[in-house]
Amino acid sequence: MNKLPLRAGVIGASGYAGQELVQLLARHPSIRLAFATSESGAGKPLPGGGRYVSVNDAPFDSVDVVFSCLPTGESGAWALRAAEAGVLSIDLSSDLRDPASGAVYGLPELWRDEIRNARLIANPGCYPTSALLALAPAVRAGIVDLTRPVIVDAASGVTGAGRTPRRDLLFGEVAEDFRAYGVGNKHRHVPEIALGLSRVGGEAPSFIFTPHLLPVRRGILETIYLPLTESLSVEAAFELWSSTYADEPFVEIETEGLPTLRSVVGRNVVSVGFAAIDVEQPTLLVVAAIDNLLKGAAGQALQNANIALGLAETEGLLL
Amino acid sequence: MNKLPLRAGVIGASGYAGQELVQLLARHPSIRLAFATSESGAGKPLPGGGRYVSVNDAPFDSVDVVFSCLPTGESGAWALRAAEAGVLSIDLSSDLRDPASGAVYGLPELWRDEIRNARLIANPGCYPTSALLALAPAVRAGIVDLTRPVIVDAASGVTGAGRTPRRDLLFGEVAEDFRAYGVGNKHRHVPEIALGLSRVGGEAPSFIFTPHLLPVRRGILETIYLPLTESLSVEAAFELWSSTYADEPFVEIETEGLPTLRSVVGRNVVSVGFAAIDVEQPTLLVVAAIDNLLKGAAGQALQNANIALGLAETEGLLL
Amino acid sequence: MNKLPLRAGVIGASGYAGQELVQLLARHPSIRLAFATSESGAGKPLPGGGRYVSVNDAPFDSVDVVFSCLPTGESGAWALRAAEAGVLSIDLSSDLRDPASGAVYGLPELWRDEIRNARLIANPGCYPTSALLALAPAVRAGIVDLTRPVIVDAASGVTGAGRTPRRDLLFGEVAEDFRAYGVGNKHRHVPEIALGLSRVGGEAPSFIFTPHLLPVRRGILETIYLPLTESLSVEAAFELWSSTYADEPFVEIETEGLPTLRSVVGRNVVSVGFAAIDVEQPTLLVVAAIDNLLKGAAGQALQNANIALGLAETEGLLL
Amino acid sequence: MNKLPLRAGVIGASGYAGQELVQLLARHPSIRLAFATSESGAGKPLPGGGRYVSVNDAPFDSVDVVFSCLPTGESGAWALRAAEAGVLSIDLSSDLRDPASGAVYGLPELWRDEIRNARLIANPGCYPTSALLALAPAVRAGIVDLTRPVIVDAASGVTGAGRTPRRDLLFGEVAEDFRAYGVGNKHRHVPEIALGLSRVGGEAPSFIFTPHLLPVRRGILETIYLPLTESLSVEAAFELWSSTYADEPFVEIETEGLPTLRSVVGRNVVSVGFAAIDVEQPTLLVVAAIDNLLKGAAGQALQNANIALGLAETEGLLL
Repeated sequence: MNKLPLRAGVIGASGYAGQELVQLLARHPSIRLAFATSESGAGKPLPGGGRYVSVNDAPFDSVDVVFSCLPTGESGAWALRAAEAGVLSIDLSSDLRDPASGAVYGLPELWRDEIRNARLIANPGCYPTSALLALAPAVRAGIVDLTRPVIVDAASGVTGAGRTPRRDLLFGEVAEDFRAYGVGNKHRHVPEIALGLSRVGGEAPSFIFTPHLLPVRRGILETIYLPLTESLSVEAAFELWSSTYADEPFVEIETEGLPTLRSVVGRNVVSVGFAAIDVEQPTLLVVAAIDNLLKGAAGQALQNANIALGLAETEGLLL
Repeated sequence: MNKLPLRAGVIGASGYAGQELVQLLARHPSIRLAFATSESGAGKPLPGGGRYVSVNDAPFDSVDVVFSCLPTGESGAWALRAAEAGVLSIDLSSDLRDPASGAVYGLPELWRDEIRNARLIANPGCYPTSALLALAPAVRAGIVDLTRPVIVDAASGVTGAGRTPRRDLLFGEVAEDFRAYGVGNKHRHVPEIALGLSRVGGEAPSFIFTPHLLPVRRGILETIYLPLTESLSVEAAFELWSSTYADEPFVEIETEGLPTLRSVVGRNVVSVGFAAIDVEQPTLLVVAAIDNLLKGAAGQALQNANIALGLAETEGLLL
Repeated sequence: MNKLPLRAGVIGASGYAGQELVQLLARHPSIRLAFATSESGAGKPLPGGGRYVSVNDAPFDSVDVVFSCLPTGESGAWALRAAEAGVLSIDLSSDLRDPASGAVYGLPELWRDEIRNARLIANPGCYPTSALLALAPAVRAGIVDLTRPVIVDAASGVTGAGRTPRRDLLFGEVAEDFRAYGVGNKHRHVPEIALGLSRVGGEAPSFIFTPHLLPVRRGILETIYLPLTESLSVEAAFELWSSTYADEPFVEIETEGLPTLRSVVGRNVVSVGFAAIDVEQPTLLVVAAIDNLLKGAAGQALQNANIALGLAETEGLLL
Repeated sequence: MNKLPLRAGVIGASGYAGQELVQLLARHPSIRLAFATSESGAGKPLPGGGRYVSVNDAPFDSVDVVFSCLPTGESGAWALRAAEAGVLSIDLSSDLRDPASGAVYGLPELWRDEIRNARLIANPGCYPTSALLALAPAVRAGIVDLTRPVIVDAASGVTGAGRTPRRDLLFGEVAEDFRAYGVGNKHRHVPEIALGLSRVGGEAPSFIFTPHLLPVRRGILETIYLPLTESLSVEAAFELWSSTYADEPFVEIETEGLPTLRSVVGRNVVSVGFAAIDVEQPTLLVVAAIDNLLKGAAGQALQNANIALGLAETEGLLL
């Protein structure tokens, strides 16, 4: 490991994920922010001190890790450039999540070993993070009824859609509304979830994913209808999920009650709870919640950085 | 029919559904408000003129129709008392929705004929109204795959929970949160939906119903995963639903796009749209939306009153 | 008057004020919508029937009245073009509110006579509408202490800022926030208020105007600290304001309690209430509320059209 | 000082301020939570570990400090009982803020010395905290024009009204609304502000205080119209306020721009900014913002505890 404190750069630091990373780094005991880029903010003061620079002026080779937080379509290219400069590079967009990119998919609770030696990490999407962590124990255990699709009905706060101005994200449009979007398995996170399910071990189920836009700032709740070959009690579900994630610091399996947005916002965790359903065909209700900007973006990126840099995985993340 | 304008009484007029009815009646061409009860507001001015009275002082026999809008557990008894007084009585609570009550279940688009001669009407619940209207065409047509449960994933604004003070409904609790409740088919609307499905004709499917609490004031969106025996295109779905509800003034079948809360709030309609899902097992995504206080409560109650009183069904409801 | 129904065109019909006008016209007994323009929506279906056209294709000379609802800076030029085409033209932007424009300032309760014969009307701003209507009775009566400035502390919902995408109006920015803007009498409505005060009669007071952005969709509340030469009871204030606005259908003076956003949203009114303040220097608290899209924009524009077209002033506006 | 870690008890730990204290204590390096009371929650698990107890079972004499967070009217009596048990007692309600109570008024930036030796502390109200800290520099400097009242126009998130169920605090009532309350200097914080102003040094101005209820969860913004004997530039204001609060860790004086709710929520600070007003009578616009649950309640209570217990004032509060 390099000399402490390590140095980090954040590309796209005025977006929601970038802002969150800047705040997390301000409290990190072993990493400090060396630069933060913003094209619109270049030259302006950065909250917490210093000034934004243009990404073109960012000294990639002077840091130990670069986080690229630009919108999908722009972010990956900068992450690749940072990786070429020889530093650990973590991309928060969708750009490098296809294995063809050569990046390691950074979902630590499922594939931690690959992350330890990675130099280029594709940080998972917010919806896939919660879906994969919620479903992996059942898929691995082979208890899913593969003749029925898993239903992942999801709802996200608006910061999940980024900070670029769009009419449909104006307060006047979102407040007092609720709508489905990207329906019919057309959301770009669908192949990411499919790929993840195919890799967790066991036979991957088919699934239907329907996201909705919530009039809240942050948080994702996924209400999952999991078809099972046989009935499973809530207690047995708790045991199965708990044993899968024993010792995981950022996974919370609820013994009673279900997670809510409120229960996870502000913390780098996924929270998973269960309910039995009184219906003929064995089906378990699984509810998973994350803060889309923490475990769904900046928090998980920092978790990945901690692992790949040889630091304690929880450093700066026990909020 | 009695001499116009007819006269109406509203029991529980300071709750959300009661307030809505008072407003609707203020614009109704053939019915006017004769009394409105509120225990907490008795003697205080009623918006639009007049004063609230105590329900104990309400002159049931001086009106043509009584709407009982008290909380479930209190409302039905008053509705029965009004019916005994010989006037048309419409109960907006869950109290009389069991057929054993002797009340007619007032969902006009499915069972209009029974409503015409009714003297005691149980106004449907908000969730069942949208679920039954969304599902009836498919159940009647016999295209539902009965080996898989229908999933009704629903979200409602907080006025659906009434206006009685409760900690979990405080702004400080609901804002920036989203949560499932009544999970595992435990919500009191589950038997109401089940009974309705068994009556629409055709074989009733099993279903799973999961409501969520939205941080909005009004509106219900139901995202329904409908298992089919064979694939159905969106166009074919549009044809089937449209033909079922041909000439229905308060049902809107969307040719493209899906309903949202915004698209129905303030109007006495149910709006239904469809999306095809790219998944192995034939499944149609059906999204239905209503304003929980209009088509889900006060609007539908007035629609029932119009029918039972021999008025035009749309009077006072084309908002 | 031309043959009924009269015909109206709406320029900029996909903005918030334009949408509101389209909805109002759909219920107007004597005016119907002949065209609605939207550059982004040209060719797409208009809610309620028909299709948007480009403003370049709008047949100004085929209608009786044109409402121009584009953003300030664009709107006035189109309103002038419509006026040149010989039709009644009403501009909802700030562009023509300077008297040099030749337009009549359309605040009916204060200057109705000028509106009757107008062919080009500058519709007042939302903040000035409520401020001027709230202050005029006191200024005319000469009871304002001119040695102290009037303080107009105002808060508006976000639709007041228009529907053009801007980062600072995203849901993620506005929700759970509250901020002052345009402080120091720098808001563009300040000269409009000043000019109006100078015209109401009596000596115009100096004033301080501070707007704030509220996390709500619509509505303006102005909390006004009115310095008086002598104390005035709430009852006396009620008398003075009520007599000034006797018979005004769209002004509500409260006998007790204060207006709130909730009490005016959805209605074309200004509501004004008072409170005495226990402080040494005689000061009256005046609270005024309007719906920024109705009495603050589209509703007042239609009120002006009714007047100038010789219709009853309240047609289509008793919501 | 007693042996570290010190031990704290929280009375009324399921209210908003109590919850916040429990969370703050979980991160405090030198104080740990020994008990937390809740009558409705007694026996149930406390977030973070342990269980709520009834206040009747709370072992006051086993701790070093007790925070009483019950509603005003109940809280003070328990704080007195704790003080009688010989431990440092801090009351967060209004009950003991009258000097007759014998409690020290705990506003550290103005009266830190008294707090050092206090055993019974009345934690200031949320509105008074921001008003007094915003106004003290000007009052002490003698630059306020005493012939005009200071106007404090304030807006607060709903958690400031507590967590006891009330109809007017339901989400269905507060969302999309904005209203003034306690107008005419009738709010119970008015005498508290008046007393504070009389104690800061210099001649106390008269003032008008108007609170409003915001549809947000937390945060207070005060827009203050400060009448001055002579004009003061923003730069000069910055100098005066900055010098008054030099070295204060929890006061932020803005060099440019104004504080917003967003800029302070989640932090134990008061932020103060200024704007010059183009008006005849010299008036400075002062905007002050705090998080009502931190610097306005739990954060300030912990700051007081740190001082009175001889700890570093910022321990556990640099969030």
